[in-house]
Amino acid sequence: MMDGILAEKRNENDRFFLFVVDNYFKDKDLAKRVPAKPEDVIKFIDVDPHEPTTEQIDTLRDEVLSTKGLPAGVIGIGGGSIMDIAKAISLMFTNEGSSTLYQGLNLIKKPGIYHLGVPTISGTGAEVSMTAVLTGPVKKLGLKCEWTVFNQVILDPELIASVPVDKWLYTGMDTYIHCIESENGILNNAYSHAYAEQSLKLCREIFLDENAGQTAENDDKLMVASMMGGLSLTYSEVGVCHALSYGLSKILGEKHCYANCLAFQHLEDYYPEGVAEFKQMLVKHKVKLPQGISNSWTDEQITAMAQVAYNLPHMWNHAIGTDWKEKISIDLIKDLYKRM
Amino acid sequence: MMDGILAEKRNENDRFFLFVVDNYFKDKDLAKRVPAKPEDVIKFIDVDPHEPTTEQIDTLRDEVLSTKGLPAGVIGIGGGSIMDIAKAISLMFTNEGSSTLYQGLNLIKKPGIYHLGVPTISGTGAEVSMTAVLTGPVKKLGLKCEWTVFNQVILDPELIASVPVDKWLYTGMDTYIHCIESENGILNNAYSHAYAEQSLKLCREIFLDENAGQTAENDDKLMVASMMGGLSLTYSEVGVCHALSYGLSKILGEKHCYANCLAFQHLEDYYPEGVAEFKQMLVKHKVKLPQGISNSWTDEQITAMAQVAYNLPHMWNHAIGTDWKEKISIDLIKDLYKRM
Repeated sequence: MMDGILAEKRNENDRFFLFVVDNYFKDKDLAKRVPAKPEDVIKFIDVDPHEPTTEQIDTLRDEVLSTKGLPAGVIGIGGGSIMDIAKAISLMFTNEGSSTLYQGLNLIKKPGIYHLGVPTISGTGAEVSMTAVLTGPVKKLGLKCEWTVFNQVILDPELIASVPVDKWLYTGMDTYIHCIESENGILNNAYSHAYAEQSLKLCREIFLDENAGQTAENDDKLMVASMMGGLSLTYSEVGVCHALSYGLSKILGEKHCYANCLAFQHLEDYYPEGVAEFKQMLVKHKVKLPQGISNSWTDEQITAMAQVAYNLPHMWNHAIGTDWKEKISIDLIKDLYKRM
Repeated sequence: MMDGILAEKRNENDRFFLFVVDNYFKDKDLAKRVPAKPEDVIKFIDVDPHEPTTEQIDTLRDEVLSTKGLPAGVIGIGGGSIMDIAKAISLMFTNEGSSTLYQGLNLIKKPGIYHLGVPTISGTGAEVSMTAVLTGPVKKLGLKCEWTVFNQVILDPELIASVPVDKWLYTGMDTYIHCIESENGILNNAYSHAYAEQSLKLCREIFLDENAGQTAENDDKLMVASMMGGLSLTYSEVGVCHALSYGLSKILGEKHCYANCLAFQHLEDYYPEGVAEFKQMLVKHKVKLPQGISNSWTDEQITAMAQVAYNLPHMWNHAIGTDWKEKISIDLIKDLYKRM
């Protein structure tokens, strides 16, 4: 199927595709099924050491441009990190300078090249969202604009990799948290609400009800839930959990979905029902999150994380309201981190 | 908002837009808010006399091409008929000959010109579906391909016209019936199911539960429900009701949403729960459908309608199964019409 989709685009620019594939698939069957031609570039990327960085995007862009030229398109095959890499590099092929210049809303100047997303794990919603989150020297923040969105997405539940239960749960919980945060804030609307409501229903079926678990049927459902959660947050906003999570990732290097879970379990003041249900899902799948980890953090680290979190005003504005600065302080955020 | 969206496109082709607007708005405030420039063409179209026809599309296309040239884009402002006219004419500006040549799946040869949809009544899902249904001399069938889909859609519930309760209900029931038909058939899948499930939930809130009725909140919900119902059927298929409805429209000229309701009330053999709930919604809003209308039809008319319905194999295949020809005959369909 992908071959047919790509055939139409192949003659654009310097007539080759850049495939960005999760290194996990390097020796797997899926890698053999990638419809690359001899002129194409395949990059297997190990997403485990760190989340996508501005430097990583700039380096890959410069390398491809100097050796092969401008691709006809970029195809991302993998999880949320690979989706964000594919979206970001598509934009950076046509926007000059470092990607650090474009972290924020609508800073990108030109549409990127064609980009196609093929998710192999469900939950982040990165396959449909309008942001490509990058960690730079100063901030963790997305390249967010209408051109970030993939031109096309292939949703095929048969590509969902069999992952360990904890990774499956953490990634799925990203969807769950997207919906809870999208619903609880001033930007929620009929559109984001309808998507969140259905995505939450699917999450309950996948993670909580009698047919919960890693089944083929639930792989189908999680793929749809991830998409709907991603559409919900795109038309609303994320909130307190994502702000704290960005601090954990930027300062301590924690991976996004896991960092979300570390934070969300302690946010009952903001999302009481959501946190209670989230904990039921953890119990159901016998996944235990570490407790007391903040004991090993220095005050400098906690302060730095709180500053990262505080500097995401769009999230606090949504979650707390336009007067959020009267209610949220660095000290309050530090106290939230100390709960972990 | 529309002005900003259109500004980017205005310099394409012969640098004017074609606005296709429901005649209902001719002397209303909305017509004054249409951001047309002096060079643009505004066509107010009365959709009451008949559903969109192939002849109507061909004539309008030829008239615009011969007097003004090729538009930069088409903007449709109105209900399902106007949406279908805008989608169809966008395609017919670039595909030669009569639109009758292209009634069916993937018969269109080239992408159309830019087209933007602005729905003012919710229910048909035409704002998101990949078909533009036209009635031609031989058949009622859509121009169906990926290029039929609008390039952009503005969903603004404040544009929803205040319509009489019966029209509001019939159009909303198109959404309801889309979901019931999408769900009950062999092409239903995780994607179409999730959309149908949420759309049905919204329909119950809008038409059945304690807060049912024509309220601003329900206008918001119906706009989302219509979109989700349209997406559900696009990735699945409609069924028995739409097949019968097309016969009523083609032979007797009944309008689509009303024709659906006339047929659906008698389809308890195929959709027992859906038909029961549909009847509750009619009672709730004191809308009565006529009974015994088939008494005034000739056998020739009933046979002609049954032939129209039978010649929609994609609908029967979905609703009944791949062996539908063993189960469905012209005589059986005639009996269904005689129930009306």
